[in-house]
Amino acid sequence: MTARVLDGQSLAARMQEEIKPEVAVFTQQHGRPPGLGIVLAGNDPASEVYVGHKVKAGTSAGFRVDLERLPATASLADALALVRRLNASPDHDGILVQSPLPKGMGRGAEQAVFDTIDPAKDVDGFGASSVGLLVQNRPKLVACTPWGVIQLLERENILIAGRHAVVVGRSDIVGKPMAMLLLHRDATVTICHSKTPNLPEVCRQADILVAAVGKPGLVTRDFVKPGAVVIDVGINRVTDATTASRLYPAGHKRLALFQSKGSILVGDVHPEVEDVAGALTPVPGGVGPLTITMLMANTLKAARDRLALAG
Amino acid sequence: MTARVLDGQSLAARMQEEIKPEVAVFTQQHGRPPGLGIVLAGNDPASEVYVGHKVKAGTSAGFRVDLERLPATASLADALALVRRLNASPDHDGILVQSPLPKGMGRGAEQAVFDTIDPAKDVDGFGASSVGLLVQNRPKLVACTPWGVIQLLERENILIAGRHAVVVGRSDIVGKPMAMLLLHRDATVTICHSKTPNLPEVCRQADILVAAVGKPGLVTRDFVKPGAVVIDVGINRVTDATTASRLYPAGHKRLALFQSKGSILVGDVHPEVEDVAGALTPVPGGVGPLTITMLMANTLKAARDRLALAG
Repeated sequence: MTARVLDGQSLAARMQEEIKPEVAVFTQQHGRPPGLGIVLAGNDPASEVYVGHKVKAGTSAGFRVDLERLPATASLADALALVRRLNASPDHDGILVQSPLPKGMGRGAEQAVFDTIDPAKDVDGFGASSVGLLVQNRPKLVACTPWGVIQLLERENILIAGRHAVVVGRSDIVGKPMAMLLLHRDATVTICHSKTPNLPEVCRQADILVAAVGKPGLVTRDFVKPGAVVIDVGINRVTDATTASRLYPAGHKRLALFQSKGSILVGDVHPEVEDVAGALTPVPGGVGPLTITMLMANTLKAARDRLALAG
Repeated sequence: MTARVLDGQSLAARMQEEIKPEVAVFTQQHGRPPGLGIVLAGNDPASEVYVGHKVKAGTSAGFRVDLERLPATASLADALALVRRLNASPDHDGILVQSPLPKGMGRGAEQAVFDTIDPAKDVDGFGASSVGLLVQNRPKLVACTPWGVIQLLERENILIAGRHAVVVGRSDIVGKPMAMLLLHRDATVTICHSKTPNLPEVCRQADILVAAVGKPGLVTRDFVKPGAVVIDVGINRVTDATTASRLYPAGHKRLALFQSKGSILVGDVHPEVEDVAGALTPVPGGVGPLTITMLMANTLKAARDRLALAG
């Protein structure tokens, strides 16, 4: 048995195409495109890549995307001032601050910046108000990654209600909002984490298993009930040969890729799980692309909601 | 085997005594007591009883408690105006709006009123901002009932970290905040509800089982792993003899009480569970009294935090 591949990449592309005409209509009606301001402080290489994807996806869908850069030496006050300027800007409907912020901004800088974003423009859904509204099942702007997972499950006609969903990982960005979204769709939900003593056993109960911990190949065959739906949220860059060869057998094309490039992106789910699961998201090409598409969907929603309130 | 009784009543009394001198110090330092404004619209008999308890507990601990009444015919606008006046009042540190509001205020009236309460004064912890801060594990004011359960577990030295906690019920007021509080104390947490197909089986996994559904005696012996800690959040008034005699055997003193009074308060946990559980909160006298004590603790905290910010 081989798991059905849940192709997030092509769903993301499809949804991106669905959004384009809606963006065009908005632009025509309001005389300006929906606008996204992205704050990038410093020049972390991974952040540059992520932000590049966001700018490209947004621009190609017809959004105005402004990349607002701050030097790595910028202070927290500089970041807050920039966010306040974007809050006040009539042309920006969404604001995204790329994590991580430079260490020099101090501990808690990210949350301080997220808290300063106008809740109406909080397209990452990381502010306290956005989170509270989600938990109370009256969401406005939902964190993009778990929201993308829900889109994928629903478009793939995977039944959520009455199923047991197990979420591994309790981050603010994925684990906790994911649990709430599944709960509100009538799943029984278990949240596991690093302090869960019998992790494989708990995970084996899952009809829907979501792995969001950032540990390459943590979820092995023994974590998975045969036929379960497995969602792999992890995106981990593996640079050591030991880990790579733990994940792929000799001769596997991904191992060959690792050997030629010196690094490879892998998920939290071990590739052997495809022999047990009923359906599985690949890494790359699963949840990742949907995250960016949901950012676009959130920005369009924020734009419409703002103008509806204003109008 | 008979479960250890987790005596919420006496813990509540003890905590109330601990709060008194702190209230006195606050009053001396600031020239006024910490103040709580309670909004009561209409004259629902149960609400009158609950509010009466809150006024009494607060007053006897040295708080200023103002009961602000609205007639049953009051509009939502009237309620919002009253909340705004309390928001602006320098003498009120906490605001509580008693549920349910009169039906005439329309659907969603409660949430609209809760959303209007200044987050700094949200001593019930029902506003979106309070909920978001709790979920992000940086709580300010936490919903009183689940917060009381945590106090009880901690004061009774019941280990939470590494245990499997199962919460039955997913309300905004108890189930969801309870799950988050247990998660942040390193429990593995499962949330069940009316759509959970195999409820007894899921509950039997619990080291700590919290029942918060409002169904008399739902949690029977077969829901409980021997030795588990069982927290009964339900407070249900039983008025029919069939239910009463399903819960208590002939000759039981609680059944006799029912027969003489015509009604009786029971929890969500069937009394037979005391033969299986390791520890159990009684109803009445378990979680209920702690809810009011936590309201006092929250009001004192809100008062201190407000003056710290102002000062």
